[in-house]
Amino acid sequence: MALPRRAAVIDVGLRDGLQNEAADVPSEAKLRLARALVDAGVRELEVTSFVRPDLVPRMADAEAVVAGLPERDGVAYVALVGNERGYDRAAAAGVRHVTFVLCATEAFSERNVRRSVAVSVGELRSLARRGEADGVAVRAAIAVSFGCPFSGPVAARTVLELAKRCAATGIVDLGIADTIGTANPRMVAERFTLLRDALPGIRLAAHFHDTRGMGLANVWAALGAGVDRFDASISGLGGCPFAPGATGNIATEDTVHLLHEAGVDTGIDIERLFSAADVAEELVGRPSAGRVKQAERAAAARRSA
Amino acid sequence: MALPRRAAVIDVGLRDGLQNEAADVPSEAKLRLARALVDAGVRELEVTSFVRPDLVPRMADAEAVVAGLPERDGVAYVALVGNERGYDRAAAAGVRHVTFVLCATEAFSERNVRRSVAVSVGELRSLARRGEADGVAVRAAIAVSFGCPFSGPVAARTVLELAKRCAATGIVDLGIADTIGTANPRMVAERFTLLRDALPGIRLAAHFHDTRGMGLANVWAALGAGVDRFDASISGLGGCPFAPGATGNIATEDTVHLLHEAGVDTGIDIERLFSAADVAEELVGRPSAGRVKQAERAAAARRSA
Repeated sequence: MALPRRAAVIDVGLRDGLQNEAADVPSEAKLRLARALVDAGVRELEVTSFVRPDLVPRMADAEAVVAGLPERDGVAYVALVGNERGYDRAAAAGVRHVTFVLCATEAFSERNVRRSVAVSVGELRSLARRGEADGVAVRAAIAVSFGCPFSGPVAARTVLELAKRCAATGIVDLGIADTIGTANPRMVAERFTLLRDALPGIRLAAHFHDTRGMGLANVWAALGAGVDRFDASISGLGGCPFAPGATGNIATEDTVHLLHEAGVDTGIDIERLFSAADVAEELVGRPSAGRVKQAERAAAARRSA
Repeated sequence: MALPRRAAVIDVGLRDGLQNEAADVPSEAKLRLARALVDAGVRELEVTSFVRPDLVPRMADAEAVVAGLPERDGVAYVALVGNERGYDRAAAAGVRHVTFVLCATEAFSERNVRRSVAVSVGELRSLARRGEADGVAVRAAIAVSFGCPFSGPVAARTVLELAKRCAATGIVDLGIADTIGTANPRMVAERFTLLRDALPGIRLAAHFHDTRGMGLANVWAALGAGVDRFDASISGLGGCPFAPGATGNIATEDTVHLLHEAGVDTGIDIERLFSAADVAEELVGRPSAGRVKQAERAAAARRSA
């Protein structure tokens, strides 16, 4: 089995995680979590969204969060932007990496971002052009790339066609997201193999939710298809495992542990990552949805008993 | 990717699950769960252990459980036996399938079954001989086949050598268990490929715990190595996810869902399996450690809203 020797784990807890949490976390607490993640060796973090605060109140402090981030060499702080207005705000705040989300289905696009897929592609094209002029790296991500809550299963061809249109705008980084957690490892292996072969100049990232327990199985399948960039959320922030319909992201600590155990380097210190998970737990007031921290600490306690 | 077209899922909730639960479940409640599993199409169930009741009090009602099982064509009820005395009890109770557990490490063997590995192999040999005479199918399982809480990582060669000695006793069914949940998908793929190639006459089963979140990733890796028999525990019985050191089995419903989504048939009706998980939750008084039942029901509720 040929696996990548190194993989990047992009923590999205501050953005995709906290955006979906019931708790409203103060900016200073968000920054504490950002520092803990950077201290653990995380080198890419999605830190906030520049979107309408009336629609996404949890991200209303985007400027304050960006202003307080620790400056570290080699760390990329990424912000999601909802449109050109969001891009303006992000660029003015000094953000150097932005992500623009498109949707694989028209039904999800209309309800989630209130525009057609074609209009989204046009916006991505404008943003990519502006980013090139401004020195801002523009990334794209395709939501509901496996299943859509409104129109059901999504064909591989649909995602491939949209990915090609994204690639044609000049972007290099493309995320493929299983937004509602319906992907399975067979689909993941097939779809990422298809995308990788069709888009050699694109850096693909996989974004999985653990809604049906298959998050890490999907990571493993994607890794086998050559994917070496994974979104994950510290402590599984983003969906309470005890709530109906919870759709938490895969936990960063469990993802990093799997990669390390399989011999794939991430540059992350797992013990320090557990400390970051402690901070995340404190922020939302409940235990991590991840499993490895608790298991490893219990095993260590038994060994020293 | 060549996957098995069909796989057996062996529910071990009544044995490996309840044995490790804090709750003492009455025999009639155990039988209600057995009926629900059989109604869902589960065709192999580990139902109890014939072991010393002073050591494993949860299994003291082994005879009563076996006596009350529903008779169904094509259903194999399996009981664990700890030694020849346990075999006597199981055979007298009318059990037709027994499993004898060996340990991959001496340290675990001495503490868990209080005998050396060599003595265990001798016992398996006697049991296999008696089973053949009595018409009782004797299976073997190797505990701590990936990692041992006392002696650490377990070498593939160690497991292979023990598996060969088991095969030499005439048994056909051999379980390979990740007792403490330290396996990762890379090890799983490598180890099962090795075993499969070395032991063509043996039917291998994989037994994973989700201690570090990798349970289903390991199922997927084993499936890719040709494994088509999986132990799993309804509702993830066997370890409370909220307790330190919890070491729950993978949940049957999540395992079956993964297999079905990947196009692997199990003969199990997932909706009825969710009903069995409801029974299991009621028995232990807490929500399933599995994820898919909750997610699917929430998605169905949203669709009908």
